[in-house]
Amino acid sequence: MHILVTNDDGVQAPGLLALAQAMRQIGDVTIVAPERNWSGGGHVKTIDRPLRVRPVKLVDGTSALSSDGAPSDCVALALLGLVEQPVNLVVSGINTMANLGHDVTYSGTVTAAMEAIIWGVPAIAFSLDGSRRDPNEMDFTAASRIARLIVRLFSQRKLPKGILLNVNVPYLPIDEIKGIRNTRQGLRLYRDRLDKRQDPRGHDYYWIGGDFPTGKDEKGTDIGALARDYVSVTPLQLDLTAYPALASLGKWDWPPDSTAQANLPTEPEQLAVTA
Amino acid sequence: MHILVTNDDGVQAPGLLALAQAMRQIGDVTIVAPERNWSGGGHVKTIDRPLRVRPVKLVDGTSALSSDGAPSDCVALALLGLVEQPVNLVVSGINTMANLGHDVTYSGTVTAAMEAIIWGVPAIAFSLDGSRRDPNEMDFTAASRIARLIVRLFSQRKLPKGILLNVNVPYLPIDEIKGIRNTRQGLRLYRDRLDKRQDPRGHDYYWIGGDFPTGKDEKGTDIGALARDYVSVTPLQLDLTAYPALASLGKWDWPPDSTAQANLPTEPEQLAVTA
Repeated sequence: MHILVTNDDGVQAPGLLALAQAMRQIGDVTIVAPERNWSGGGHVKTIDRPLRVRPVKLVDGTSALSSDGAPSDCVALALLGLVEQPVNLVVSGINTMANLGHDVTYSGTVTAAMEAIIWGVPAIAFSLDGSRRDPNEMDFTAASRIARLIVRLFSQRKLPKGILLNVNVPYLPIDEIKGIRNTRQGLRLYRDRLDKRQDPRGHDYYWIGGDFPTGKDEKGTDIGALARDYVSVTPLQLDLTAYPALASLGKWDWPPDSTAQANLPTEPEQLAVTA
Repeated sequence: MHILVTNDDGVQAPGLLALAQAMRQIGDVTIVAPERNWSGGGHVKTIDRPLRVRPVKLVDGTSALSSDGAPSDCVALALLGLVEQPVNLVVSGINTMANLGHDVTYSGTVTAAMEAIIWGVPAIAFSLDGSRRDPNEMDFTAASRIARLIVRLFSQRKLPKGILLNVNVPYLPIDEIKGIRNTRQGLRLYRDRLDKRQDPRGHDYYWIGGDFPTGKDEKGTDIGALARDYVSVTPLQLDLTAYPALASLGKWDWPPDSTAQANLPTEPEQLAVTA
């Protein structure tokens, strides 16, 4: 198995090293990761500028490639031909903060996995619920073991097409983790606040600040599993269609179909909708 | 109704002007949009640097605010307090390229609407299927009218909580548009290719290039609707859980729950999974 490793904290992050070392026990590993931190960077496709790729060494001597693109760009670069050997699995992480609930569309860790799915390659995102701990002081032992376990299972069971796994590990010693739960995406409660400041020249600027997000602690969710000291495994898809809402939208009474202009509004004053 | 207008092509894009002018016929309009183009920029939360906000004038003299953040940052800034009057609806666009299928997680236009949903404000993303036409030469008349129609309907019917609308309009005169269809997200077919070049000093760099994406033309989808000259209205949600896959994941046989270390792998050699 050839495993591509990436992350959103940057190629030299200790979480990537831990994940690469864990994956090397399972298969061949290639690393393509961003040269800087992209946390909260979203699902990026960089098309307005070219991307650079540089060979780097990790602290254990492992060879890696870094790019000035986002995590998703790193995956696209690798799968579009930068890496010659076909990739069987993309793993992303180990992120030093959990990616729960609505975090998934912001998260560079998760969107790197989304990019792999778009190119038809299975993908798993790994995050550790480290809150605001210093990444350089964190212990990735338990999360690495969970990552190995899950990727070994993946190699035997496979995943449904188009599905990525979003794995979150509680920040606990391995013997205090209670087990693994399949979960649905829960409800993140963001507590961002706008922090308005003035620069030394008296001009305003704004930080998106506030408190660390919490979440609605519901059974069956990613947030609920972590709150109970379980590893959370959430299968995610890229179809965001709100199927139940399709029915209620039907009641909006769109203008009747026609190729005639009369059935669509042509002037502002004709736009009033009939009851 | 107080409507916040944003986009991902930048505050001076003609599509934003067209949308703002259309919305002004329905309610009070405030504009907070990025100062530059963020196409393909994803769902960003900028937390590693402060954001600047500057007052600007659109070409018709309309006052607007621009920010050096992403479209989603503009929405967060506005809803977290930059804009004092409560916002009833966020509209994003009019984008000059369609946002179909898997485009939705990349799209600045759509992720701006996602950000509004996260802060509890309804949102609609508008995109015009202009392919690679020059935005400065494009005709936004039909798309503006469709936007007015849909927002007027929204003001009467409301949307289910947590749902945003992703609206795509064919690039046709209004009398050639056949109607409006509620759709599900279709399958985008990307045709990106890696374009490797050398700079004047002989160093490699890479463009994510290739051909314009196509899509699987299926009935009931956003892509299918546009292909038949209909406006596509897709309700989207931020829950990406692949519910059907939860069942198949159950068969992965996670190690049994326990507070005892014995039930989770502690050493690499113990990681083999029992059949």
